[in-house]
Amino acid sequence: MEYINDLKWTKGMKVKDLVANYQNLGYQSIELKKASDVIVKMKKDSAKVFLTFTSNMVTSGLRGFFAQLIRLKMADIIVTTVGGIEEDVMKASGERFQVGRFDSDDVELHEKGINRVGNILIKNESYMRFEDMVLEILNNLYSKQKRWAVSDMLKEIGLTLSDENSILYQASRNDVPIFCPAITDGAFGFHLYLFQQKHPDFIVDVVKDFGNILLSTSQDEKKGVIALGGSISKHHAILSTLLNGGANYAVYMTTAHKTSGSMSGATTEEAKSWGKVQHESDIATVIGDVSITFPIAMIAALEELSEEGLL
Amino acid sequence: MEYINDLKWTKGMKVKDLVANYQNLGYQSIELKKASDVIVKMKKDSAKVFLTFTSNMVTSGLRGFFAQLIRLKMADIIVTTVGGIEEDVMKASGERFQVGRFDSDDVELHEKGINRVGNILIKNESYMRFEDMVLEILNNLYSKQKRWAVSDMLKEIGLTLSDENSILYQASRNDVPIFCPAITDGAFGFHLYLFQQKHPDFIVDVVKDFGNILLSTSQDEKKGVIALGGSISKHHAILSTLLNGGANYAVYMTTAHKTSGSMSGATTEEAKSWGKVQHESDIATVIGDVSITFPIAMIAALEELSEEGLL
Amino acid sequence: MEYINDLKWTKGMKVKDLVANYQNLGYQSIELKKASDVIVKMKKDSAKVFLTFTSNMVTSGLRGFFAQLIRLKMADIIVTTVGGIEEDVMKASGERFQVGRFDSDDVELHEKGINRVGNILIKNESYMRFEDMVLEILNNLYSKQKRWAVSDMLKEIGLTLSDENSILYQASRNDVPIFCPAITDGAFGFHLYLFQQKHPDFIVDVVKDFGNILLSTSQDEKKGVIALGGSISKHHAILSTLLNGGANYAVYMTTAHKTSGSMSGATTEEAKSWGKVQHESDIATVIGDVSITFPIAMIAALEELSEEGLL
Amino acid sequence: MEYINDLKWTKGMKVKDLVANYQNLGYQSIELKKASDVIVKMKKDSAKVFLTFTSNMVTSGLRGFFAQLIRLKMADIIVTTVGGIEEDVMKASGERFQVGRFDSDDVELHEKGINRVGNILIKNESYMRFEDMVLEILNNLYSKQKRWAVSDMLKEIGLTLSDENSILYQASRNDVPIFCPAITDGAFGFHLYLFQQKHPDFIVDVVKDFGNILLSTSQDEKKGVIALGGSISKHHAILSTLLNGGANYAVYMTTAHKTSGSMSGATTEEAKSWGKVQHESDIATVIGDVSITFPIAMIAALEELSEEGLL
Repeated sequence: MEYINDLKWTKGMKVKDLVANYQNLGYQSIELKKASDVIVKMKKDSAKVFLTFTSNMVTSGLRGFFAQLIRLKMADIIVTTVGGIEEDVMKASGERFQVGRFDSDDVELHEKGINRVGNILIKNESYMRFEDMVLEILNNLYSKQKRWAVSDMLKEIGLTLSDENSILYQASRNDVPIFCPAITDGAFGFHLYLFQQKHPDFIVDVVKDFGNILLSTSQDEKKGVIALGGSISKHHAILSTLLNGGANYAVYMTTAHKTSGSMSGATTEEAKSWGKVQHESDIATVIGDVSITFPIAMIAALEELSEEGLL
Repeated sequence: MEYINDLKWTKGMKVKDLVANYQNLGYQSIELKKASDVIVKMKKDSAKVFLTFTSNMVTSGLRGFFAQLIRLKMADIIVTTVGGIEEDVMKASGERFQVGRFDSDDVELHEKGINRVGNILIKNESYMRFEDMVLEILNNLYSKQKRWAVSDMLKEIGLTLSDENSILYQASRNDVPIFCPAITDGAFGFHLYLFQQKHPDFIVDVVKDFGNILLSTSQDEKKGVIALGGSISKHHAILSTLLNGGANYAVYMTTAHKTSGSMSGATTEEAKSWGKVQHESDIATVIGDVSITFPIAMIAALEELSEEGLL
Repeated sequence: MEYINDLKWTKGMKVKDLVANYQNLGYQSIELKKASDVIVKMKKDSAKVFLTFTSNMVTSGLRGFFAQLIRLKMADIIVTTVGGIEEDVMKASGERFQVGRFDSDDVELHEKGINRVGNILIKNESYMRFEDMVLEILNNLYSKQKRWAVSDMLKEIGLTLSDENSILYQASRNDVPIFCPAITDGAFGFHLYLFQQKHPDFIVDVVKDFGNILLSTSQDEKKGVIALGGSISKHHAILSTLLNGGANYAVYMTTAHKTSGSMSGATTEEAKSWGKVQHESDIATVIGDVSITFPIAMIAALEELSEEGLL
Repeated sequence: MEYINDLKWTKGMKVKDLVANYQNLGYQSIELKKASDVIVKMKKDSAKVFLTFTSNMVTSGLRGFFAQLIRLKMADIIVTTVGGIEEDVMKASGERFQVGRFDSDDVELHEKGINRVGNILIKNESYMRFEDMVLEILNNLYSKQKRWAVSDMLKEIGLTLSDENSILYQASRNDVPIFCPAITDGAFGFHLYLFQQKHPDFIVDVVKDFGNILLSTSQDEKKGVIALGGSISKHHAILSTLLNGGANYAVYMTTAHKTSGSMSGATTEEAKSWGKVQHESDIATVIGDVSITFPIAMIAALEELSEEGLL
């Protein structure tokens, strides 16, 4: 039986101390502590960990944190959307995004050639430089083979990068496959199309990649899912674990609620309907902005694993 | 200058009358009336209309409404996720989904072989019968050609169906392409994978399909987007119109807010940053459950267009 | 066993027809139909109905609808916040509010002497004219007695109004008490304070009014709650019914979710913990903007009651 | 010009370090850092600080944190709802609340005599013991005078408590008035009513208390508002500062969005329409669960003030 305890600030308080307090604080703070604990549990149990996130998180500074997590072996399989891949590559080549405002004048931004994602700004030039890079990347890929599974293509791209804060860089060097089930849904898709117009035998094989994600784990392995935000990233990871018998651990962090029946808002209770997750203590859903909640929960987990010599 | 007016019920009130009242009611009801007006405007201006929705809406009874809208020429291009395609086909072959509860006992449901999407229930058997159908569908496709763009494949499937309430049925017969940028992210993806294992030369060409959606409209044509929910369906339609100069009209209906920088919550203000939408009166964002808001807004638009002899 | 049915538009569709379709549509539309049914049930069962709403709903055109509902005997007890009372009185004296925009330039509005509530605009002058009225109202009240329970005071004010669309007008003439547990939390509170400075024996007796709301129903009577939005309006009605044995019927319509433990987001499941509501079919929670959802649900209920000769 | 920076975990990371990173992270994390900065600014500028919160936050372990903040002179005026006052007193007399689950079986809880607030559980016995205390409290108050302004009454109650983690205890000893504009909206209201039945000359003077909150600051003083959640607590503080020329600093932390025109979701942009807040840097709105966001933002502010010798 856990009781609610009064929170007290003590000078020099660490993230880990605060999260320890969350356990007895109330509402979503309790869920966040649970999420942190489930992450620790999945690592201790040597589960294969699917980490999924949406493009807007890569637009944010979480991008470097994801790269660090891959390097620390906290993620074994990545699922994301193509915008995130584009922006990771842009950043790896030196582009910097600016802090903006949610209530900007969008007409004015447009005139200045600036694109807005919430309170983050991306210049048109960043996309233009990306274009320049892509043609070289595709020529290089095409010279090796004509038919590419998406995750293999992304690994090749990652190997060409030299930024340690890059998701693709770390994934390619740590044997962590990156799956992106809608690879054409972004500027990259447009460039793939232009390239295929010149090279009709160039094929991006999404069907083969579905096999790759299936084979990235097995029925026998323990599996964990950390899904940040909703979208096909979350769905694709859940689907993959489901076809291999279901996840043993699941942490969902999202702003979406379950009341509209959307994938973004679907709760970890579903995990129970998969028939694999048995214990309440192995699932957690945290409602809130991932840019706030994920670093706290994950940092507390990292501190715990570090203290136990498991990092 | 519009004033707030007191709402009054009158006996036998029509949906259209209520929506007319919304114009002067307040908060999201005003936005809903605006959405209905923008839909009327895009039709009157002969814009090519992109209608996008997520799978959970096809799970719901909106599926038949979407089919009707295609038949009525209210949508020229469909973008959705693969779950919706699977369920449209299931329903076309006689499967029925049940009304459930949001707070069901998921362990109990699992034991009964029932899957839950919010307050809607789908039996495992429905998926199993879908499996049986798929092999025949794929054999048939493969016999015609080895390499398929996704929208061409979906048209072929639609032509095999005989249910007038089916989205694929109506789309295939009304020359409305259905785009699905993440075709493998569902049970169908698994069957594609199994089929390709036997037939390695079977290729689903997502890159070619990106060309198809680009060519489905042009720079010169007026373009409108009706995006229900978020996800890649919404993003893919916006991206496609953007590459052709931007949409002239945009209606977003969603439960997501813009505060987390997600695609689901991105507002129509963005449309202004595209540099195409100039007038406030041509865009509308309605926050609310689409199962409630979309039928009201669209029915009012249909009544209006019908009265003006445009349906 | 209810099944999901495909929605179909038919020309001239009535609100009632649409709500009938909601029963088999999905997600919140199903809950909305349930809410409409619970309203019908509470009336058929002759329950005393508590209708609660927040000030911003009176700012909107729902104000006239609430007045109509009181006239139609659809509400027996009103609980609201003082802003709503002020605005009802302003409107009764001819003030009109304008339709504005959520993303207005607030500095510019301030310079023009305009106050914004979401997408509704109120001029400073409307408040100034209200000030002029209040002194007369208070003088009149004070001449009758020195100590006033809030609901008695509001009844007296209502009797002085001559606008049939006014909540206070209809309430005072239909013996429907209006409770406002935080009567000082608005411009009216400031005027009460100034008046008391001159007349120290003028007393607003909130404690006595708690007795009034308690005695407005009894243990033996059936009780129903229709709570729109959260706030103390909702809480006060629930508390009052609780002290009389709990509500038999409860409909909550709100944009708030239960995940933060707030009163606004508390669900009707609580009603079960009161030990009075036994059947699932007697409670409903609808997530969505009340300016859209309440008119639909209530109009469908009114049509039903009207057809059965109960209005 | 601020840039987005990659987040990196470093061992032993302090809350303050994480919040420093939030400045360049993205979405709500940026707003949270801004909120923390605004809190520091209002203290450095010697503003009178209004701290407002809803009852459910006192149910949680934030209660002891609020008490600590009062002791540290971080709040000069408190505004809350009566449930919070009741629960602060219960806890001061030794009652403990338990950690529960959002998806509890409410019928079962009812049978066990347990009340649920989100994922926090309160036993019926806690309320019963509160009842026993209240009669003594009221007898004591009545023996001193017959007519009480609410904040004076709450100060008297605070002086009788001996728990340093109690909000009322700290407020009464640090000359911080607690305002509660709807004092009857809870169990305490019921007891006030019963007491007045026996002692008709016992008066709770809410009008006088409106004068007290007005006089707690002046036109000339700098004023800051930290509003946690919505409700009349937030509105009452804003109203009070408005009547004294507007707040100079405002931090709103809430789960509510502005799209429904509710007070809970009203943004700090309003502060600009008051004509007092001039600079963007003096206001912040953070969307998220206060049990997570407030401790982080406030702890970072406390560390900063502490380092500068201002605590």
